[in-house]
Amino acid sequence: MKLNEFCERMERIAPRSLAMDFDNVGLLITPDHDEIRKVLVALDLTAAVASEAISGKYDLVLTHHPIFWDPVKAISIEDPDTAAAYHLIRHGIGHFAAHTNLDACKGGVNDVLASLLHLIDVRPLPPENLGRIGSLPEECSFGAFASFCEQAFQVRGRFVGDPDKRVRTVAVIGGSGGSDVKAVYDAGCDAFVTGEMKHSQTLTAEHFGLNCCVLGHYETEFPVLKPLISRLQEEKNDVQYDLTQSGSTPLYCL
Amino acid sequence: MKLNEFCERMERIAPRSLAMDFDNVGLLITPDHDEIRKVLVALDLTAAVASEAISGKYDLVLTHHPIFWDPVKAISIEDPDTAAAYHLIRHGIGHFAAHTNLDACKGGVNDVLASLLHLIDVRPLPPENLGRIGSLPEECSFGAFASFCEQAFQVRGRFVGDPDKRVRTVAVIGGSGGSDVKAVYDAGCDAFVTGEMKHSQTLTAEHFGLNCCVLGHYETEFPVLKPLISRLQEEKNDVQYDLTQSGSTPLYCL
Amino acid sequence: MKLNEFCERMERIAPRSLAMDFDNVGLLITPDHDEIRKVLVALDLTAAVASEAISGKYDLVLTHHPIFWDPVKAISIEDPDTAAAYHLIRHGIGHFAAHTNLDACKGGVNDVLASLLHLIDVRPLPPENLGRIGSLPEECSFGAFASFCEQAFQVRGRFVGDPDKRVRTVAVIGGSGGSDVKAVYDAGCDAFVTGEMKHSQTLTAEHFGLNCCVLGHYETEFPVLKPLISRLQEEKNDVQYDLTQSGSTPLYCL
Amino acid sequence: MKLNEFCERMERIAPRSLAMDFDNVGLLITPDHDEIRKVLVALDLTAAVASEAISGKYDLVLTHHPIFWDPVKAISIEDPDTAAAYHLIRHGIGHFAAHTNLDACKGGVNDVLASLLHLIDVRPLPPENLGRIGSLPEECSFGAFASFCEQAFQVRGRFVGDPDKRVRTVAVIGGSGGSDVKAVYDAGCDAFVTGEMKHSQTLTAEHFGLNCCVLGHYETEFPVLKPLISRLQEEKNDVQYDLTQSGSTPLYCL
Amino acid sequence: MKLNEFCERMERIAPRSLAMDFDNVGLLITPDHDEIRKVLVALDLTAAVASEAISGKYDLVLTHHPIFWDPVKAISIEDPDTAAAYHLIRHGIGHFAAHTNLDACKGGVNDVLASLLHLIDVRPLPPENLGRIGSLPEECSFGAFASFCEQAFQVRGRFVGDPDKRVRTVAVIGGSGGSDVKAVYDAGCDAFVTGEMKHSQTLTAEHFGLNCCVLGHYETEFPVLKPLISRLQEEKNDVQYDLTQSGSTPLYCL
Amino acid sequence: MKLNEFCERMERIAPRSLAMDFDNVGLLITPDHDEIRKVLVALDLTAAVASEAISGKYDLVLTHHPIFWDPVKAISIEDPDTAAAYHLIRHGIGHFAAHTNLDACKGGVNDVLASLLHLIDVRPLPPENLGRIGSLPEECSFGAFASFCEQAFQVRGRFVGDPDKRVRTVAVIGGSGGSDVKAVYDAGCDAFVTGEMKHSQTLTAEHFGLNCCVLGHYETEFPVLKPLISRLQEEKNDVQYDLTQSGSTPLYCL
Repeated sequence: MKLNEFCERMERIAPRSLAMDFDNVGLLITPDHDEIRKVLVALDLTAAVASEAISGKYDLVLTHHPIFWDPVKAISIEDPDTAAAYHLIRHGIGHFAAHTNLDACKGGVNDVLASLLHLIDVRPLPPENLGRIGSLPEECSFGAFASFCEQAFQVRGRFVGDPDKRVRTVAVIGGSGGSDVKAVYDAGCDAFVTGEMKHSQTLTAEHFGLNCCVLGHYETEFPVLKPLISRLQEEKNDVQYDLTQSGSTPLYCL
Repeated sequence: MKLNEFCERMERIAPRSLAMDFDNVGLLITPDHDEIRKVLVALDLTAAVASEAISGKYDLVLTHHPIFWDPVKAISIEDPDTAAAYHLIRHGIGHFAAHTNLDACKGGVNDVLASLLHLIDVRPLPPENLGRIGSLPEECSFGAFASFCEQAFQVRGRFVGDPDKRVRTVAVIGGSGGSDVKAVYDAGCDAFVTGEMKHSQTLTAEHFGLNCCVLGHYETEFPVLKPLISRLQEEKNDVQYDLTQSGSTPLYCL
Repeated sequence: MKLNEFCERMERIAPRSLAMDFDNVGLLITPDHDEIRKVLVALDLTAAVASEAISGKYDLVLTHHPIFWDPVKAISIEDPDTAAAYHLIRHGIGHFAAHTNLDACKGGVNDVLASLLHLIDVRPLPPENLGRIGSLPEECSFGAFASFCEQAFQVRGRFVGDPDKRVRTVAVIGGSGGSDVKAVYDAGCDAFVTGEMKHSQTLTAEHFGLNCCVLGHYETEFPVLKPLISRLQEEKNDVQYDLTQSGSTPLYCL
Repeated sequence: MKLNEFCERMERIAPRSLAMDFDNVGLLITPDHDEIRKVLVALDLTAAVASEAISGKYDLVLTHHPIFWDPVKAISIEDPDTAAAYHLIRHGIGHFAAHTNLDACKGGVNDVLASLLHLIDVRPLPPENLGRIGSLPEECSFGAFASFCEQAFQVRGRFVGDPDKRVRTVAVIGGSGGSDVKAVYDAGCDAFVTGEMKHSQTLTAEHFGLNCCVLGHYETEFPVLKPLISRLQEEKNDVQYDLTQSGSTPLYCL
Repeated sequence: MKLNEFCERMERIAPRSLAMDFDNVGLLITPDHDEIRKVLVALDLTAAVASEAISGKYDLVLTHHPIFWDPVKAISIEDPDTAAAYHLIRHGIGHFAAHTNLDACKGGVNDVLASLLHLIDVRPLPPENLGRIGSLPEECSFGAFASFCEQAFQVRGRFVGDPDKRVRTVAVIGGSGGSDVKAVYDAGCDAFVTGEMKHSQTLTAEHFGLNCCVLGHYETEFPVLKPLISRLQEEKNDVQYDLTQSGSTPLYCL
Repeated sequence: MKLNEFCERMERIAPRSLAMDFDNVGLLITPDHDEIRKVLVALDLTAAVASEAISGKYDLVLTHHPIFWDPVKAISIEDPDTAAAYHLIRHGIGHFAAHTNLDACKGGVNDVLASLLHLIDVRPLPPENLGRIGSLPEECSFGAFASFCEQAFQVRGRFVGDPDKRVRTVAVIGGSGGSDVKAVYDAGCDAFVTGEMKHSQTLTAEHFGLNCCVLGHYETEFPVLKPLISRLQEEKNDVQYDLTQSGSTPLYCL
């Protein structure tokens, strides 16, 4: 597949116009050749993912988080902000990022979360429409819902709220959703599933009596990758897409 | 004790000049009387802490985090940013905050952490000198150190790094220390103990091969409160200082 | 009357959408109970007005100027910017402000001024539409108009301009109107009645040959309060509204 | 006298280094010849002062307020901010301004005010040292002091405060001093004499119980002009200095 | 002709609404009389042009570049930014500027350039529509086109690009056009004719393979002046318009 | 030579501390190996210089202008701001820039210019000390000096000023010096030699009667490169330094 075609396919899946203004998305590093045969898919462009791309002779790395966040004025192997870029370019491999556009798009990060939680009547969460709101098929206690989340995501979570309260309407925001606690509360949700919340945000949630499941930044964004690959494979399929073996979260429990 | 005397005693313990420029510390709400007999001590001025102060007829609430962070133009019961202030004032109770000055001062948040970890040769962590660096009495593996941290803080932590690496020099920053990963690495530490790290900060730590123990914002700041009370009681002691019963972290594991 | 109903009634009288962007209006301090029986009405929430509200057991103080102008990070009895707020909250009394929305609204500050001056064909003063323009029923000299203003407002004014010039079209802006001298001149007015003008603004008025009556900030805003009370009483009237006894201007002549 | 010599003489009287950062002082319009024989002295460079300078064939107009405050991008006869500059340049007349440096300098605006009020032990008012503090030769009531002010300045003033309070220590700031109410109070003064105060500043003064005499912007700055002329005449005196006939305040009482 | 009529005629030729936001155009110095009989036309209001206007008893100087670019707070004979303004005002002569509106308007700077180069199918250059794009009547080599430019403008130019490349579509921007290199390239042009390019802009042009003719800021703006005079003379013609004798570019070759 | 040693040698020649605050200097792209054997030296890192570095198997490109000026968020082959960086990294070649530190340092850009012009008593040009002032061995006319400049730099220049004026004191600023016209005039120079001046800067020079030689940005910076190579070769010399064959200015005369 031509590089061009790949970019257009991604545009159809996660249109650039859905990205937030401050975001950095699209083809951030040009590959040194036009023909794309192997694409490595990951959340982050870490040194390990770059190494995997190099040893696996990939043409492109497709990630959720863009390789550059703050703009740079030098490309150094020593600097964690530019080392992976250095290695990719050194080996002629390109990089494409779909970040907040992949959060917000149909079938994106948050639709996948909603689906993992079996939510029904799923709709965008105002005001930014990155997250989703939906209903549980059956009302249950927050304690039961919390257990269900740990099973669904195969993770040990942390929780805010009352295990005995009843839960029906649920909001989901993959990654860092803590700044939306008030928006979720205003939307009338009984529970909020997200990846990361700062200490002060948990206090705000407690103030509003909003039940929260904090399941990990990585753990709530990773699930989108397989469905994303499936959608990329739907059309003409002469490209091999592989999920990274190396890009797991650095955070572990004992 | 006169309010005035209390403020001077706090100034000796955690001098205002140690606070960061952006911080908001000192007597943030005046009590409606000058005589201080009961002081409630907590990390945060939540609604629950305010209620405890009211029902316990406290004169003052002394906390680590200031009651106002962003400045306000209205005081509303509904707004989580102003509700606790409302209730304190309504009942004539004052509020005193010692935040980054309590992090940085001798015997403050980070000295207490260093002590909990049995660090020796403890010194300030450049460049801001809020945190501390010290050495373990005996070198050990990071895996062993991580277990020791969970025991010392009585908490289930999350970790970044290689359990087999040897650890001797350790940095500690209570609360949110993730933005100092590079500073800790540059200071030549083998391990970094802090409360909160964002996903991207864990990736930076992994890049530098910096072993990290992420033990909870609340859990790494709470330990300072008892020693702080002891120091307040050292001099003339006609005030009753009580540790809050209600201000624990809202975040729990199942 | 429920607090809610009161707020809605004020919204009908002086809609929030009429306030300037930089303004701070609405319910700025929540009362600690929901039932409103007594409302004290004043221009400013001074310490004296707060005392009157406390001793008179009012539920709410309704003022033209908001209690907070610059946002605050502490509530102190010593600080003139927060002392009145402290005392109100301490006694469970709320505060509602209608400022530039009360200037601009139908029947507001400037309509009342226009009516006191017997203006006819009254219309908003561009470009901000806070002030009003109208015509005197009969043309007269500026000297005669100036005397009439002193009688109408029962105040000793200061004046800019030529007593012999003829006056027909008049602009009014309660409070500080000096920054609108050019706008008033461009609107083709013969005279401008306002509360406060800075020295440099009087020079601008003199340059344009614009006759001005400077009658006092307090004196040109106070007249709205009685009509405002009447309008609040028009509908279902289970609330007692009282004009403050204490909030007069501190500025006096010998 | 050469233009150069005149500028140096002014520099000795009111050194440029005493001016506030935001100020605009010195030779703001070059005269079209180098020999200075007649200088017109005024507070403001109004159209009337410019006409007087033209008809009187002056070489220079020396004022307290600078002819340009906000910087300009056009010089138009119609615009009050540039008309006087136009006329001066058109007739080859120069303009020199001594503003906050004349407030602060020895023998300047505020020393003259202190002298008019017979203050003794006169010293600069912190923190900006533009104003002055001093003591009355004999303590008196604020009512008596207020009457004395009206006589000393030959003006009808407005006043804030309690006529029965005793006054000994007095602060003076010519022109607009209202923003220094807190500084004057902190300096321990019993009374504050200034030219202009905004409504909200009178409320602050009332809050602190600070007695204020508000005597007019023009009236509190004009007295410096005669002593300034005397000092200019002290040295070699081949220049005729005239006080303007036309530049009085536009504000009058009926 | 009345001043007013002159301004209206210029408004029809180069409407103010076409000027860029940051620009300073229109009647920037009022003449001291209302009747306009002689207008001097130049690119810049230099000291020499001002002298010519004075000795030739002109009523107005009409230029492309405005006399004030950065706003000023003093008018000094010594300062190159204000000296010409001083001299004009001193002699009662006005100044009118038509800058980016004269670049963009029909028959303006860039239309005249296009015409000098015999371009056909001339249209505005996106995105700002100041410049123009057009086609050569016949394709030629860039080397031939460069020679033709030197003849058409009677100037020794400097050039970027390959003399052998074929040129058909040409963009023109009088004055400093270097910041539009990418816009010209994106518009599909074969060559770009402008006045000034910075070193780094020539490198960008070389990167894109964009052939450029750099003919001088003055040389590419001066040609508009004669056609501008002709258009001013089209209607009722009681004004004498003269092209300056003195305002040539200071830059010369040996 | 180790990369490290090379960087230290450059630090001794052009210390980083001499660079302006806004500049971007030092090792901007890491080479992918530590041993430096061949260094290509040029003014700019253009595509052509990058190609030459690649085909010549250089380890490092040393330039005056940094490869990144505005910070970047993507590295694209299509973008002129990042293409050269892409190609260097792709081939494992590093990049080191010495910009305003090379202007200011002893033996740097401006010392070399001074030497080319045979200036004596050479000293830094205030206030920034990037440029140099010096005296000609013998006074001459500006016309003769201008001819001498064209010979010394082997370039056709452009000039501002009077060929008959006498020249003794000369200022030099390589590259874009036009913004320093006033500083050069204030320093009392008779002539100013620089690379680039904007049209408005030539008018300012003409106003001050400052004679200027405008010799080309490239032409006034290029001369430093050979002496820089010599200095790099002075010490232990196991590195081959080559002056680029390809990086000449894109600007040519017909």
